Formats: sequence, structure tokens, C-alpha cells
Amino acid sequence: MIVQLFWLGIVGAVIAIGFAFFQARKVLGYSEGNDTMKKIAGAIRVGADAYLKRQYTTVIKFFVIVFVILCALAFIPILMGQDEGLVNRFAPFAFLTGGFFTGLSGYIGMKVATASNSRTAQAASESLNKGLRVSFSSGSVMGFTVAGLGLLDITIWFLLLRFVFGANDIEIGQAMVKFGLGVCFMAMFARVGGGIFTKAADVGADLVGKVEAGIPEDDPRNPAVIADNVGDNVGDVAGMGADLYEAYAHAIIATFALGVGVGYSYGGMLLPILMAAVGIIASIIGTFFVRTKEDASQKSLLKSLHRGTFLAAGISAVAALPLTWLVASLELPANANATFYEATGLPPGQIVSMMDNVWGIFGAILLGIGAGLLIGHFTEYFTSDMYKPTKELAEASETGTATVMIGGLALGMKATVGPILTVAFAAIISFLISGGFRDGDINFYAGLYGIGIAAVGMLSTLGVNLATDAFGPVADNAGGIAQMSHLPEEVRNRTDALDSLGNTTAATGKGFSIGSTSFTALALLVSYMALAGVGREELSVANPPVLIGLFIGAATAFFFAALTISAVHKAAQSVVIEVRRQFKEITGLMEGKAEPDYAKCVDLCTQGALKKMVAPSLLALVVPVGTGFLLGAAGVVGLLAGIVITGFTLAVFMMCSGGAWDNAKKYVESGKLGGKGSENHKATVIGDTVGDPFKDTAGPSFNILITLSSSVALVFVYLAEFSLIDWLLG
Amino acid sequence: MIVQLFWLGIVGAVIAIGFAFFQARKVLGYSEGNDTMKKIAGAIRVGADAYLKRQYTTVIKFFVIVFVILCALAFIPILMGQDEGLVNRFAPFAFLTGGFFTGLSGYIGMKVATASNSRTAQAASESLNKGLRVSFSSGSVMGFTVAGLGLLDITIWFLLLRFVFGANDIEIGQAMVKFGLGVCFMAMFARVGGGIFTKAADVGADLVGKVEAGIPEDDPRNPAVIADNVGDNVGDVAGMGADLYEAYAHAIIATFALGVGVGYSYGGMLLPILMAAVGIIASIIGTFFVRTKEDASQKSLLKSLHRGTFLAAGISAVAALPLTWLVASLELPANANATFYEATGLPPGQIVSMMDNVWGIFGAILLGIGAGLLIGHFTEYFTSDMYKPTKELAEASETGTATVMIGGLALGMKATVGPILTVAFAAIISFLISGGFRDGDINFYAGLYGIGIAAVGMLSTLGVNLATDAFGPVADNAGGIAQMSHLPEEVRNRTDALDSLGNTTAATGKGFSIGSTSFTALALLVSYMALAGVGREELSVANPPVLIGLFIGAATAFFFAALTISAVHKAAQSVVIEVRRQFKEITGLMEGKAEPDYAKCVDLCTQGALKKMVAPSLLALVVPVGTGFLLGAAGVVGLLAGIVITGFTLAVFMMCSGGAWDNAKKYVESGKLGGKGSENHKATVIGDTVGDPFKDTAGPSFNILITLSSSVALVFVYLAEFSLIDWLLG
Repeated sequence: MIVQLFWLGIVGAVIAIGFAFFQARKVLGYSEGNDTMKKIAGAIRVGADAYLKRQYTTVIKFFVIVFVILCALAFIPILMGQDEGLVNRFAPFAFLTGGFFTGLSGYIGMKVATASNSRTAQAASESLNKGLRVSFSSGSVMGFTVAGLGLLDITIWFLLLRFVFGANDIEIGQAMVKFGLGVCFMAMFARVGGGIFTKAADVGADLVGKVEAGIPEDDPRNPAVIADNVGDNVGDVAGMGADLYEAYAHAIIATFALGVGVGYSYGGMLLPILMAAVGIIASIIGTFFVRTKEDASQKSLLKSLHRGTFLAAGISAVAALPLTWLVASLELPANANATFYEATGLPPGQIVSMMDNVWGIFGAILLGIGAGLLIGHFTEYFTSDMYKPTKELAEASETGTATVMIGGLALGMKATVGPILTVAFAAIISFLISGGFRDGDINFYAGLYGIGIAAVGMLSTLGVNLATDAFGPVADNAGGIAQMSHLPEEVRNRTDALDSLGNTTAATGKGFSIGSTSFTALALLVSYMALAGVGREELSVANPPVLIGLFIGAATAFFFAALTISAVHKAAQSVVIEVRRQFKEITGLMEGKAEPDYAKCVDLCTQGALKKMVAPSLLALVVPVGTGFLLGAAGVVGLLAGIVITGFTLAVFMMCSGGAWDNAKKYVESGKLGGKGSENHKATVIGDTVGDPFKDTAGPSFNILITLSSSVALVFVYLAEFSLIDWLLG
Repeated sequence: MIVQLFWLGIVGAVIAIGFAFFQARKVLGYSEGNDTMKKIAGAIRVGADAYLKRQYTTVIKFFVIVFVILCALAFIPILMGQDEGLVNRFAPFAFLTGGFFTGLSGYIGMKVATASNSRTAQAASESLNKGLRVSFSSGSVMGFTVAGLGLLDITIWFLLLRFVFGANDIEIGQAMVKFGLGVCFMAMFARVGGGIFTKAADVGADLVGKVEAGIPEDDPRNPAVIADNVGDNVGDVAGMGADLYEAYAHAIIATFALGVGVGYSYGGMLLPILMAAVGIIASIIGTFFVRTKEDASQKSLLKSLHRGTFLAAGISAVAALPLTWLVASLELPANANATFYEATGLPPGQIVSMMDNVWGIFGAILLGIGAGLLIGHFTEYFTSDMYKPTKELAEASETGTATVMIGGLALGMKATVGPILTVAFAAIISFLISGGFRDGDINFYAGLYGIGIAAVGMLSTLGVNLATDAFGPVADNAGGIAQMSHLPEEVRNRTDALDSLGNTTAATGKGFSIGSTSFTALALLVSYMALAGVGREELSVANPPVLIGLFIGAATAFFFAALTISAVHKAAQSVVIEVRRQFKEITGLMEGKAEPDYAKCVDLCTQGALKKMVAPSLLALVVPVGTGFLLGAAGVVGLLAGIVITGFTLAVFMMCSGGAWDNAKKYVESGKLGGKGSENHKATVIGDTVGDPFKDTAGPSFNILITLSSSVALVFVYLAEFSLIDWLLG
């Protein structure tokens, strides 16, 4: 009976996808505006299409290589007569489906965003509320596509494994926890590649256009302007879509594994599926409450978005208790407990039932939802110019660029404390209340299940959260189109208001994904420990392989940051040189008599992104395997913990510094402290330029670094058995 | 018999102090130069004296408070009839002596440095080699004072405990590991206070003098120029002296504790003492090989310093084998093993003798020495303009300030990898070869002893290493005096060559202290685990309190960085405002007809430093105690590990970014890429200004954060027994 309820996952997914489809049709019903607008939007669309096509083509090669390796590891041992392969036999195929759905999420989001930008510009020329509705609808296509496809992918695999391959609960849990590899491998390329593209174009366009030539942002004379607008779509939309697909799917499957580990069996797996389905419905309701009045202040715009997200969170929270109770009270199939005792070797009776911890699990879901909102609040506080930190940062420009830099770095470092403590205490309280306060291994797992389900709770309303996030780049693009097609000043002002709002919600969205990832990472860590069979005693932080692993993890996170920000740095330099060249060589360009060669800049960004996205992505693949070979499973656990801790902290630091620099610049541009063109403005523009790769390339990639390295470790878990250190120790 | 050999520690200490005295007399024998030079040196001396006096007066208050708390915890339970107090009864007094000797090290170093600056300027007017000899001799006074006092403090306490209080080996080990608290509490105030002072003055002087008014560095018309030169002495000399005293003393006492833990008894304690004594003699020999020719290039200057340090390292390495063998072969007192079995409850026969691991211990010492040199090489590679990274950073100024900033941040992040891997692999190999490759708790401790002794090996040649480090600020001051007293251009060029060299060796010296600290920290962590009685199973990284502790540790390190760099930021802003005021209000100042009010700037820096040094110092005191209350001992272990890992990585990142920015600026100033006054120069000056608090305030304070938080945890270990989490769990 209980396994039939998993079909509700399909229902939830279909509702999400249907709603996304409905929103897409609504958006496409709006007018695209005049011919100039259509032409510009067309150019952006062509560029974004072309980039994503080339990116996916490159990525496919890596997918083929890894697929072949996985197949070899999975089937050669079986062909040679072994009982099982070195990796799970479903892993190669799940690797492909995960990658496919992740890429598809990004692609659909990008498609809708590039169809909505000119429509948003057109709508904004009518009213601010219309502009918000169109861009927000476009964002919600992405939000619900991601949630729908994620839920679909997981549910289908569950049903396949259960009904087609006849796997039992233990086998399903152990198989599915490894399914994240393809998801995060794809997400990594999309996030890093898109992030490099968008910031290379942005920094390149700003450094020459705004700073050297003194022409406004999004001026059609700037050869990098189309690349900049393409970047918003391939980085901030497609990259973010893939990224959040990853966070969402991973939270659910990691909780699956823990649910099985504690003996909750199908109930432990069903709860996250149903939470996701309920979250989709709550999100749909939430979207209807996002609207604004004309002439709304930034505060009231933000409030209108909060209305949608808070309402959805509230509905999910209220629904969580009956849902948890319902799932806990369902009867399991007769064989579920038997296979559990057989697999774990525990004496019957040691098992805990979900009903024992029903209040705790409910509490953990609430904590997850609350932690998400709280992290959002912290990032908002540190990055929005409505609050003191960013205002003070803008004022630091009075004593020059150096103090803006020092102030921004210190701000980001300070900003790490709130989210870290939130995650830390939400995690430990979730752990304790959902069973972890009792002695024994089983209760330890029950506590961890609480942490996993908290992540699911946090992400359950992804649909509406992502919508409030993904509308930002659409509004940004709309502003560009308004500027380039010389629409009236007020249109640009309206899209600017939406764009600035999008900056803040983007920081919040990134806080969500990194926050939930830290929970998920813990779940993956524990799954790894269980699969690798390392005892808790070996995993003492004072055990040298663990401690060394922690150190290597910290170095990996820092090196990853260095690679991604230098990639932007290098790619941007090539754009700078090209833009300077066009300004010099194309006669009549500055007078508006000749057109710049936009395609050349798009091409440079594409090349830079494709070339430079490989090293950071492979880092997450190579380091866990290498550490496993050198230090064994205990070293890998240390490594993963080190990557989580340092990666999380660096992510918050970089996203908040970058967000605050950006908004400090916008604060000055709004006329404060001398306004545009003043020395203060120049200082904050430099801050923004430094912050760009922080907040849009390196910062939001850390959560994928964390899950990708965990997934690699999980999939190649058997390889760590042949470690140098174990060989040395005999 | 073996305990009598500890008197050799006193002999070594006396030799070091005698040599320091001899060097000081030599320096004082040189001429102080003309009257102007004497007057300026006098002003610097008065400022530095006044600051240190006020700093120590402030710090004494905190010492009194902590002393009273320690006494209360130690003696009230005894007075109430308990067998022992909540802290060790010797701890309050060791807290005072540790603080006293640490402060004294800084004070003597500062005294000699302020007496040597004008003498170095005078000597440099005769020849480059003479300038080097005088400044290097002054640096070696500091180096040998630190080593001598450190060894003296520890040996005297050992002898007191053994012969006056009749303590046995176990009691001595357990008592002495807690003696570091006073040392690092003092070092923290000295490092952070001095670091804020020096950088507030430096940044303030540069921002207004160099950037706004366009007058050269060290121009006597700049009101902050004396404060800037005072800062070199109270920050880079006194602060660094206290810092390295701390690293040195802590490495030895942490190894004491491990030696006892593994049952090496007095042998385990004697070896670090003798290594330190041998290192002092090797260092004295090394100092005689530091000399240079006239017109030496920077490369050959660096080579002449390397000659001294490499030779000393070589002698120590060669002496280590016979020394280890000698100590291992000594017969222990009859009761040593008996007390060990009694204390540990092990069945007799489980003990390992030092002789079993004699080759491993020797290997660990070599690894420590080698790791120190290798870390030095890495930091040199990333921060010296003789190599590619800093050259490329300077070239990034071609595309503006933003790319200099991004490039410097990426450089520092990349630079973390080498030192981290060095420390990681030196630690694990030391662990394995010195016994850790065998099973069992005893061998685990034997392996850890290897890690501790590696730190002692690395720091054994502190005398000469610190000398190559502490001569830099003296040369910097000499340059200032040469400029202010209008000595010929060539004198300034010579002191500049020495100063630039000092920048690189300073980065190396900081690498040493953070590198050795990471080893020491591991030893302290294990001592804490043993004293707190937490089992290895509880300490699994996946155990939520441990993982949460790790997260809080990361947040602590980032927050500490934010506090220190904002402190500089704020104090510098007050200096900027004052300097601007003086330029505006004092008539005739710019024409050289009126004197600025130097004392006012010194006072502002003093106030800023004294006010802002408190919060970061108390952070390290409050967080471990608070975490203990909330999460218990397992949480504290996680916390300490988190602080080590993140603190180490941040330290290397910040020191390398800062060093590279500084030298990129010097590279441009040497005439490359447009030279002084060019746009490129401006961009690199901003980089340097941002880097100042990175490399001289926050960066070098992390190692003290690490040991201070460990020491606090160790001293207040019993408090973690009353934790909230344990109370909740019943």
C-alpha cells in the first residue's frame, strides 16, 4: 500500500510542470514590443542558445567519459564472475538521467527568460506591477520546472527500481544516494561555465564602457553589451536553475538514504516526496500573492515578494504535521523490517518507528523552513542598502577605494557568523529532537534523518523561492533592452527597481541553496561512512588521516575559489582588449553610425567559459578519489567535512561581500554621496567589479563543490579500500 | 640522573641570553649618527615606550581579572574540602610568569630595535654590508632573547615542579600543558594591539601623505610619520617577538604533554629541551655567516640570509640523531613507569620505549625542519617579486585597480595549497614513522609525539630565523630616519634594499609560526581530549556536536579576521581625518616652516589600538568556554579543529595576498610598468593598503587565536562537564 503512495510524487511533479507550462503560456501571450526590441531580444536569444549548445556539447564529452568509466567499474567485475561491481549497476544510467534533467532545467529556464525579457520591458512601459508580473511569471516557470523535473526524476527512479527491478527498500536507498553524481556534475559545469561567461562579459563591458569610455550601462555602442545580456541568461538563469535543481534533488535523495539507514524504510522515503509535492502546491498558492502597486518603494516591492514566499512557507509548515503523522502511521510491507534486520544484523526490536519521533520530525521540518527564512534575512541584512552595513560600506568610499575594499571584505567575513550559527543550531536541534538525544546507533541515524528532512523542509517551497530569484536577471535584461531601444526613462527606472530587488533576492536564493546543502552534505557524509564501513572511532577528528583530510578540504575550497575567480579575471581581460580594439578600429562606432561586432565578444566569453570551466569541475572529481587512494576512507570523510565547512563559510563570505559591493554602488548611483560620476562612485564601481566574480561565479558554486565531491566519494567508495595508507599499515 | 639533564635547558637559555647581550652591546657600540638622526630616533623611542607602557597597563588589568578567576577556580574547591580545584593549582602562577616573559620578550626586542634604527641608518651610510650587520645584529638580540627566555621559563617551571613541589612525570606533563594560557593571552594583546597601531598609522600616513598630498613616504612634514615608525617597533617588533615566543614555548610544552601521554616520561620531555638548546647553538653559528658584498642584488642579499638559516637548520638536523638516541638510551627513574601504569590503568608491558621509535622520532624532527623551510619557500615564491605570481599581479595594474584586487585575492587563495599540503603530509608522515603505524592507543600517542617533536624541530633554530625576520622593521625605521634627516639618496636606497628583503623574510617568518602552530595545535587538541576524557568514538566528525563545533570554529576564524581588519580600518580613518586637519590648519607646514603635531597621531593610534584589541582577544577566551557550556567536550574538540583548519588557511591566504600586494607596489616603484606616480602605481598602492591589515594585523594573529583558544579550553576543561547538551541528554 505505502509504495503506491509514491505515485503522488508523479502527481506533484505533473502539477508543477503543468503550472510552469501555464505560466509560460501566460508570459508568451504578452507583446514583445516594437521591432528594435524584438531585434535585440533576438540577438540575446541567439547568443544564449549558441552558448548553451556549445556548453552542453563540451559537457557531453565528459559525461561520455565518466559514463564509460562507471560502466566499466559496474559491469566488468560482474562479467568476470563477481557478485557485484565496483559501483552500483544503476549508477551509470542514473548518472545520465540526472545530468539530463539538470541540463534540461537550465535550458527551459533560459528559453523562457530569453522570451520574457522584451516582454517585461514592454510590460514595464505600461506599469511597474505589470513588469513585476511578467518577470515574476517568467521566474516561476523556472522555479516550477526545476521542482517538477526534480521530483519526477526521483519518483520515476524509485518506481523503476521498486516495480521493474524488484529492489527492496535497503537496495533502493543505497542505490539512490549515488544518483546525485550526474546531477551535480552537470550543475557544476552549468554554474561555473555560466558564471565565468556572465562575469567576464559584465566586467569587460563595465571596465571599458563605463569606466574608460564613459558611456552608460547597456549602451548599444558597447561591443560587449549583448554578451553581457546573454550572460544574465546563461549564468544567472541557466546556471542557477541547474544549481537549485541539484540542491533540491540531492536533499531528497540524501534523506532517502538516511530514512533507510534508520529503518524507517518506505516511510522515510515517502515523507520527503510528499513534502516536496505539498511544497509545490503551497508555492503555487504563494505565487498568486505577488503583486505590487505603482510607485512602490523598494521596501514594499520586497514585501510583496516576501508575501508570496512567507505564505508558501507557512502552508508547508502547517501541512507538515498531518503529513508526518500520516506517513508515520502507514503500515509497511511485511518484508520491509525483515530486510532491514538482515542488512544491518541488528537484533529485532532495536528498530525505532517513525511514530516514536513524529513530533521531532515535524519540528525538524519547521526548523528547516525557519532556518531558510533566517539565512535569507541575514543575507538581506548584510547586502541590501536598506540596512546599515551596506550604507556604511558606501560611506567608506569617502576615504577612497582601499577602504571600500577593506570594508567589503570585513563585511562579508562578519556576515558568515549568522548563517553559520543558524545552520549549526538548526542542525543540532533537529538532530536531538528527532531521536538523536537517545543512546545507540539507531537513534543516531534517527537524529540524522531529522537533519536531512530539515533540508527538504527548507527547499520544499523551492518553486516560489526560485521564482523570486529568477525574475531578477529577466528584469536586468529588460532594462538592457529598454536602454538599447531608447524607451522612455521611466521604463528603465522601473526595470532598475526590479533589478535592484533581484540583487537582494538573488543573495537570499544563494543563501538557501548553500544552507540546505550544508544539511544535505551531512547526510551524504553519513551515507559515505556507512557504505565505506568506517567506524566512528576511526573518524575522530584527532585521527591524523581525518585531520589531514580536513586540511586538504580547506585547501580544496580555497583553490576552487582561486581557480574560478582567476578564470573570470583572465576571460574579462580578453574582453577588455577586444572592446578597446573595436572602439579604436571601427570608425563611426562612438557616433552611433556603425554597429559594433557583438558576436566577437559573445564568442570570447564562450571560449573563456568553456576552457576555464573544466579545471574547477574536475577538481571536485579528482581530489576525493586522490585522497581516497592516499588516506583511505577516514581521510575522505575528513576531506568532505573540510570542504563543507570551509566551502560554506567562503560561499557566504563571497556572496555577501559581492552583494554589498554591488548594492553600495547602486546606493551611490541613486544619487547619494555625490551620485554617478563622483569619486565615490568610481570607488564603489571598483568594489562592484571585484565583487562580481565573488557573488556570481565562485560564491554560488561552492554548494555544488560540496555535493559533487561527496557524490564522487560515494560512487567510488570501493576505490578507497585500496588506499596507500592502509597498504603501508599492512 | 635523567632529570638532572634538564639543567642543560638552563645552560642553553643562558647561552642564548648571553649571546643576545653580546649582540646588543655590539649594536650599541655603533654611532647613532648626527643630531637630527638622534632627535628623530628619540621621538620614535619615546612614542614606542609610551605605547607599550599603556598597552601593558591595559593588559595587566585583564591579567588580574583572569588571575583572580583562576585562583578562585583552583583554590575555592580545595578550601571547601575537595581534593583538587576546577583548574590546576599551578595554573594561576604559570599564567603570570608566561605573560610576564612574553611581554618581556617583546619589550626587549622593541628596546633594542629603537636603539638600532638610527645606528643602522648611520652604518648604511658607510656600506650596505655594515647596514645589514647592524640591523641583523639588532634582530638577533630579539631572536635569542625570545629563544632564551622561552627555554628558561619552561625549564625553571619543570625544575620547580620536580624538585620543589616533588611532582612526578605525569603531574608535570598535565600541569605544564596548561601553562600556555598566559603566554598566548599576552601574545594576543601584543600582536593585535601592535598590529592595529602599526597599520592604522601606516595606512593613515599613506592615504593622506602619499595619495592626497603627494609627498614622499617618511616625509617629515607628514604628521603621521612618527606614528608610522613607532608602529614598526610596537607592531612588527614587539608584537612579533611576543608572537614567536608563544609559538616556541607552546611547541615545547605541548610536546611535554604528549611525551608523558605515551609513557616516554622524562625522556619525552627532555628531548624538546635539548633540541631547543642545540638549536640555540646552531643558530649562533648561523648568525656568523650572514654578510654581504656592497651592491648586492636582492637575490644575493636573500641568499646571504639563507646561508645563515640553512646552516643552522643543517646543524640542528645533524645533531638530532645522536641527541634522540642519547635521550632514548637514558635510564628512567624507577618510579617513572610505575606512575604511568597507575595513571593510565594500562597493564604493564603495553608501554613503548623511546628506543623503539628512535629513527621515527629523528625522522619527524627532520620533517619538521624540512617543512619549515618548504613553507618558507612557498611563501617566498608567492610574495617575492623575483617570481612570476607577484610580477603578474603587478602587471594586472594595466587593466586597473579592480584586476589588482581580484588578482591579489586569487593569488593568496592559491598560495594556501602548498603550505597546507606540506603541513598535512609532514604531520601524517611524522605520525606514521614515529609509532602511529602500529595499532593501539599507546602507539597512537607515540605517533602524535612525532608530530609534536616535528614542531619543536621546525622552531629549534628560532634564534637565527627570528633574526632574519626582526631586522626588517629596523631597516624600515632606518630608512625613515635617513629620509627625515635628509641623508644622501644612496643611504635610502640601501635601507630600501634591506627593507624589501625584510618584507619577504617577514612572510617567511609568519609562515614558520603558523606552520609550527598547526602541529602544536594538534598536540593541544589531543591533550584536551585526554584531559576531558572524551572517547574517540564521540569525536567522530559526523557526530553533530563535533560537526557543529567545526562550523563554529570556522565562523570564529572569519569573525576574528573581520574584527581585526575593521579595527585597522576604523583607526586609520581617525588618523586620516587628523592628518587632513593638520595639513589644513597648521600654516607653513607644507613649506617645512612649521612642525606637525606628531604626538597627536601617535595618541590616536594608541587609543585605537588599545580600544580595538580587546574584542578579538576576548573572542578567543569566550568562544571555547561558551561552546563547552553548550556542546560539551566533543563540541569543543570540533571547535578547536575548526579554528585550526580555517585559521591556518586564512592566515596563509591573508599573509600571501598582503605580501604580494606590497611587493607588487615595490616592483612598480622600482621603475617597472611606468614607475612611481603612474596609474599602475596608484592601483598597486591601493592593493598595498588593502593588504596592510591582511598581512600585518589579521594574518599573523591567527596562530595565537589557535593556541589561545586551545589553552583556554585546556585550562577550563572541567567546565565543559556541565554542558547544556549533556544536561539535555540526561
